[in-house]
Amino acid sequence: MNSSPQAEVFEVPAEVFEAAYWLRVQSNSLKQTKALVSELSLQFYKLGWLSGTGGSVTLKVHEHNVPKQNQFIVMSPSGVQKDRMSPEDTYVLSSGGSILSLPPTKSYPNNPPKCTDCAPLFLKVYEMCNAGAVIHSHGLDACLVTMINSSSNEFRIRNMEMIKGIQGHGYHDELVVPIIENAPSEGQLVESLTKAIRGYPKSTAVLVRRHGVFIWGDTWISAKTQAECYHYLFAAAIKLRQLGLPY
Amino acid sequence: MNSSPQAEVFEVPAEVFEAAYWLRVQSNSLKQTKALVSELSLQFYKLGWLSGTGGSVTLKVHEHNVPKQNQFIVMSPSGVQKDRMSPEDTYVLSSGGSILSLPPTKSYPNNPPKCTDCAPLFLKVYEMCNAGAVIHSHGLDACLVTMINSSSNEFRIRNMEMIKGIQGHGYHDELVVPIIENAPSEGQLVESLTKAIRGYPKSTAVLVRRHGVFIWGDTWISAKTQAECYHYLFAAAIKLRQLGLPY
Amino acid sequence: MNSSPQAEVFEVPAEVFEAAYWLRVQSNSLKQTKALVSELSLQFYKLGWLSGTGGSVTLKVHEHNVPKQNQFIVMSPSGVQKDRMSPEDTYVLSSGGSILSLPPTKSYPNNPPKCTDCAPLFLKVYEMCNAGAVIHSHGLDACLVTMINSSSNEFRIRNMEMIKGIQGHGYHDELVVPIIENAPSEGQLVESLTKAIRGYPKSTAVLVRRHGVFIWGDTWISAKTQAECYHYLFAAAIKLRQLGLPY
Amino acid sequence: MNSSPQAEVFEVPAEVFEAAYWLRVQSNSLKQTKALVSELSLQFYKLGWLSGTGGSVTLKVHEHNVPKQNQFIVMSPSGVQKDRMSPEDTYVLSSGGSILSLPPTKSYPNNPPKCTDCAPLFLKVYEMCNAGAVIHSHGLDACLVTMINSSSNEFRIRNMEMIKGIQGHGYHDELVVPIIENAPSEGQLVESLTKAIRGYPKSTAVLVRRHGVFIWGDTWISAKTQAECYHYLFAAAIKLRQLGLPY
Repeated sequence: MNSSPQAEVFEVPAEVFEAAYWLRVQSNSLKQTKALVSELSLQFYKLGWLSGTGGSVTLKVHEHNVPKQNQFIVMSPSGVQKDRMSPEDTYVLSSGGSILSLPPTKSYPNNPPKCTDCAPLFLKVYEMCNAGAVIHSHGLDACLVTMINSSSNEFRIRNMEMIKGIQGHGYHDELVVPIIENAPSEGQLVESLTKAIRGYPKSTAVLVRRHGVFIWGDTWISAKTQAECYHYLFAAAIKLRQLGLPY
Repeated sequence: MNSSPQAEVFEVPAEVFEAAYWLRVQSNSLKQTKALVSELSLQFYKLGWLSGTGGSVTLKVHEHNVPKQNQFIVMSPSGVQKDRMSPEDTYVLSSGGSILSLPPTKSYPNNPPKCTDCAPLFLKVYEMCNAGAVIHSHGLDACLVTMINSSSNEFRIRNMEMIKGIQGHGYHDELVVPIIENAPSEGQLVESLTKAIRGYPKSTAVLVRRHGVFIWGDTWISAKTQAECYHYLFAAAIKLRQLGLPY
Repeated sequence: MNSSPQAEVFEVPAEVFEAAYWLRVQSNSLKQTKALVSELSLQFYKLGWLSGTGGSVTLKVHEHNVPKQNQFIVMSPSGVQKDRMSPEDTYVLSSGGSILSLPPTKSYPNNPPKCTDCAPLFLKVYEMCNAGAVIHSHGLDACLVTMINSSSNEFRIRNMEMIKGIQGHGYHDELVVPIIENAPSEGQLVESLTKAIRGYPKSTAVLVRRHGVFIWGDTWISAKTQAECYHYLFAAAIKLRQLGLPY
Repeated sequence: MNSSPQAEVFEVPAEVFEAAYWLRVQSNSLKQTKALVSELSLQFYKLGWLSGTGGSVTLKVHEHNVPKQNQFIVMSPSGVQKDRMSPEDTYVLSSGGSILSLPPTKSYPNNPPKCTDCAPLFLKVYEMCNAGAVIHSHGLDACLVTMINSSSNEFRIRNMEMIKGIQGHGYHDELVVPIIENAPSEGQLVESLTKAIRGYPKSTAVLVRRHGVFIWGDTWISAKTQAECYHYLFAAAIKLRQLGLPY
């Protein structure tokens, strides 16, 4: 885990002190992105993807003159209720993973803020996949499809129209999503996530056994759209198995 | 596919330049229809029929002195989030399928607008069925009922009260919905859809294998009501099969 | 069916012309009851009880000095979308079933108003059960529990806490709900509904095979609360059967 | 049951007359807690935990200088619709269980207020577990997991990420929730609930056979978060069993 990207609060790098950074921290684009993280968190909570404070949404802050690899990143805190997260409750990170601003400490019974435990995983996806957004979902069917065959490291489905909603896939393509084994803490998943992304360059998702799924896209719209398609396909697989039908 | 109706942006026919057209394009009835397409899209998204940008709703614009076959048609763009589609995001087509107005290009990360890939299918239904509205749903159970028996080209159910909600059917009538095979692109379904409509004149729906369903009605109320009944009956069939009961 | 109560629009009885009637028609209590019918219809639609214009809600209009058997009755029209029904869209009937006021005719594509086909059934329940409200639901599980054993005329369940929510029942009581056979039109159910109510005086519900359920209570709160309990118990029965567990 | 805490309306203890009490009864913190009980009741109703007036939510009133064991307690009335409960509809109890304020009597058809039948159970949990909030849910899956093996007094599940959401549990810990037998009235559960809490000090929940579950936490956020995790795990267990998979 030593070489994996980390969210670090106190070791602020020199770049942070550049004046341009502070202007960007106050930009409309950043405000909108924070609002969007809050809004999508509520929407996904209602879809059952983020219950029990599990799961998380992160977006890059799109700015016209900033290449994606340099864009700021908005993340949510660890262990907060996703149905009650306001735009102010979010973290802003530099593209390298340094925390630029953190949410204010809220009164009892809220815990002091701590950046999401998924930060190293999100940063790894941003780094490897040129993603603009990542969704980590605890949707029940995402969890269950990893348990149908506990010795398989892949979820496969084909001949479903909704596969067309997954980037780079047509109706006749088989969708293959790698499954990695779960670990006691999110940070311990960095290595296997990295390996899965490398091993499945066509996939825009990695399932975590008995846990959930990470899904990403070039933009928040692409990530959300694909997340809806993946969850549809997971639900289809579960129902087809209940019906004794192949998929 | 050569003879099938097509949405064409640039080949605007002479009729479009008639003054009356432009008055109609600004009518209250058109505004209300665009608002209704947006509103129904959100409602159907919440019912699970339009997730992952899949599925679509189209309505004819009712005007008192305009016969249905000449009415304008409102459609949604291809690949847009149906939970976030405003009235302005819609297309207006002439009854012949020419695009009269298109939505403004939205800022990043939205894609430039492109009329729904279902346009030729919707136009075919309007042409053949004297419909006032068509709903294309990706509801999971609509997809799954086509997979129970992959060699059957019909979904059949009978003795269910909700069959009375389907136009032209009483409680003792068997409901028969044709199933056509899916294809890589919507446009390739025109021929088989045409054949299914011709072969099943009593049906107001055509299922598409591993994909979803097209449902229509004389008016948007009839299409929506029947769509709710069809989805209820699809859900019933799936649950009855899970329970090992006939339907 | 000759002796069953009927909703009749044109044969207004003499009583209707009494001045007191017209005052009551304008009362706050009536306005609130119409609003409540509209509000509950939307809520029950969202619960899946009233989809496809199926199902219906009717309430008596509570007034302090009017005994329940003389109270006005609010009903909804036949074949209207229950998610879009305003207070003005409702009918007011005298306790004897004469229509006192009907909704205004709405513009195209709405149909001209027609009182719910359930009117004779609702009037029969009001007459026999001293009910203050009746809910007719097409909830899918209510329909399915009647299909598990097509030769049984009863739904039975016991040892479930939620049975305590049904009027007159404790935890150790078995809940027995009669099932009547469906018929092509609601009016044809009057006789069998009457017989079922007479045969099961402890029940506050009658299931209709392959159709749904009628549930009533002394007040709208009692009817709604019991309806939630019945639907919970129907859902439990379906899931228990899927799990291969007795109930 | 003689030694169990009881909600008593008329035997107001001397402490109640202390001036400080009346100030606290009017505090902002109390107002917010009453509003939160109302708000959470609606949210949990929508999740299916509180239908048919079943289930209940209770919170302690956090005040800076008041130790938790002395804090006021907000409870809801017995038999009220949890989707329509306003902040004013709640009871305030002293830490010892004496009623300090009760809701106003509402007009017909509401029943006169009566404190929740769960009061002795809630007080017992507050007393034994140093809880800040208790949720009693009738969620269907919570009920059903107690019926899978009617001779087992425990619900067990392991190797599920969502177990990490339960206080004191890591991913590799097995979650064990005791199941007590149901009884005709809530009050009769006090003894077995007490025994279960004593026997399972690591558990923050007790299931009641064929009934539902009691879940608590140090704060309302902890109780709600854990409740979402427990319900997720109950749903997972039911679906895994339907799929024929172990858990």
